[in-house]
Amino acid sequence: MQFFDKENPIGVFDSGIGGLTVVKRLNQCMPNENIVYFGDTARVPYGNKSNTTVIEYATEDAQFLLQKNVKIIVVACNTASSVALNHLQEKFEIPIIGMIEPGARRALEVSKSGKIGVIGTYATINNKAYSKKIKELDSNVQVFEKACPLFVPLAEEGLIKHPATKLIAEEYLSGLKEAGIDTLILGCTHYPILAETISEIMGEGVTLVDSGEAASREVRKYLEGRGLKNDSNSIGGNKFYVSDIQTKFEEIAELFLGKKLDFFDKVDLEELFRK
Amino acid sequence: MQFFDKENPIGVFDSGIGGLTVVKRLNQCMPNENIVYFGDTARVPYGNKSNTTVIEYATEDAQFLLQKNVKIIVVACNTASSVALNHLQEKFEIPIIGMIEPGARRALEVSKSGKIGVIGTYATINNKAYSKKIKELDSNVQVFEKACPLFVPLAEEGLIKHPATKLIAEEYLSGLKEAGIDTLILGCTHYPILAETISEIMGEGVTLVDSGEAASREVRKYLEGRGLKNDSNSIGGNKFYVSDIQTKFEEIAELFLGKKLDFFDKVDLEELFRK
Repeated sequence: MQFFDKENPIGVFDSGIGGLTVVKRLNQCMPNENIVYFGDTARVPYGNKSNTTVIEYATEDAQFLLQKNVKIIVVACNTASSVALNHLQEKFEIPIIGMIEPGARRALEVSKSGKIGVIGTYATINNKAYSKKIKELDSNVQVFEKACPLFVPLAEEGLIKHPATKLIAEEYLSGLKEAGIDTLILGCTHYPILAETISEIMGEGVTLVDSGEAASREVRKYLEGRGLKNDSNSIGGNKFYVSDIQTKFEEIAELFLGKKLDFFDKVDLEELFRK
Repeated sequence: MQFFDKENPIGVFDSGIGGLTVVKRLNQCMPNENIVYFGDTARVPYGNKSNTTVIEYATEDAQFLLQKNVKIIVVACNTASSVALNHLQEKFEIPIIGMIEPGARRALEVSKSGKIGVIGTYATINNKAYSKKIKELDSNVQVFEKACPLFVPLAEEGLIKHPATKLIAEEYLSGLKEAGIDTLILGCTHYPILAETISEIMGEGVTLVDSGEAASREVRKYLEGRGLKNDSNSIGGNKFYVSDIQTKFEEIAELFLGKKLDFFDKVDLEELFRK
């Protein structure tokens, strides 16, 4: 089967461009891998949509990546991971790795106090995705969750260290500070962009866990374990597909990926799967 | 034809729930009219999507309202008005009223200095929708435009008088203040929610124009002129349809409409028009 080939790309999808922070981590972790990314920018955001809608969209996103002969799929969207991962894993044969379990495992490795905080979109927090997974892995841990919906637009507008961002972050995070957590999961792919501001507010005693980084390590481990790691000596290529070219797309994408995009194109998912 | 009947409802659509500020104005202006509202919450926001995508979505929104036998359609979304109105007016026979021309006319009535400001989403501002229309009506006027993308999430989060909202608003509006405008068009249906904060920053010398209010008057004038005004003595009913029930939907809707929703339901546009 095609997707069991070393040379094939890693597929990554997200509701929009936030998942580029995960591509950045994958590139750092496995520079020789090729990556095909799909960002559903025509239907972004998923974070405030119903579970049914998110599952429908995530299924289409995965189908698009399968057409690109990917060897593994990374769901670089916490909302889709928390809502649709089980569904995708049941529906498709290919290995599919989400954000939640890697982030939860990493937080448990890091935490000494057993008090872990999680921030994310309404969908991720309301689904209690992280707290359920963490408690499944270790029932003695206390988990404190907080939805921070404005972090996504603030990150996309590049207001990374803006006083308004600090004010909003202080409000969002005050309860987690009071709870005395020592570990905070950034449960949304946009949030690493605001890591410095978040870290300043939480203080030195709190370690931030980037789920994208944790997931990248799990992808590497998985590929190595199955002899599927790309052993080419050259740097892999990234191809980016989106369902709409948004205003300021390249500018925001560069902020999230940490470098310019090599290649991007627009695809119409609805046309692909509906007509 | 069905839509030339007085008793038939006024159809209103928006990318999401922002258009409820327009429904509020329509209710105030014509309490006896029935209203059918469609909010495309599964695909919101339109403001950062490409023109092609916005036209496609707006066409489907209008088609849904036509199925509800509306007698007139109000495009209660500045982005869709600026991008798709001409297309909709060519495609459908029914009268269709957008936000731009009514807002532009009202600003020209109000302004004494001939210096008019416009705030809106990236799409509305980048398309220069208001400035083109204002200059078409009066070429001697100076128009100053500014995209305020964070106003939408701030309004939806209910941070109406929050210090962070004030900080962001001060930054967005400083150029318009310096330009010495005496009239400011709120060129996005979410912005009336933030009117008090915006007005405080702009000062007493600046009149705010609510395009939804201006459009409501034009709808009334149109219906009266054609004998299509509902002459029932009872208060009309509002029916709200959305393409997704978002988190906090009822709460936000109430904030925007100024009262509780009588009736709402979810419809799947994609299923309706694609399958």
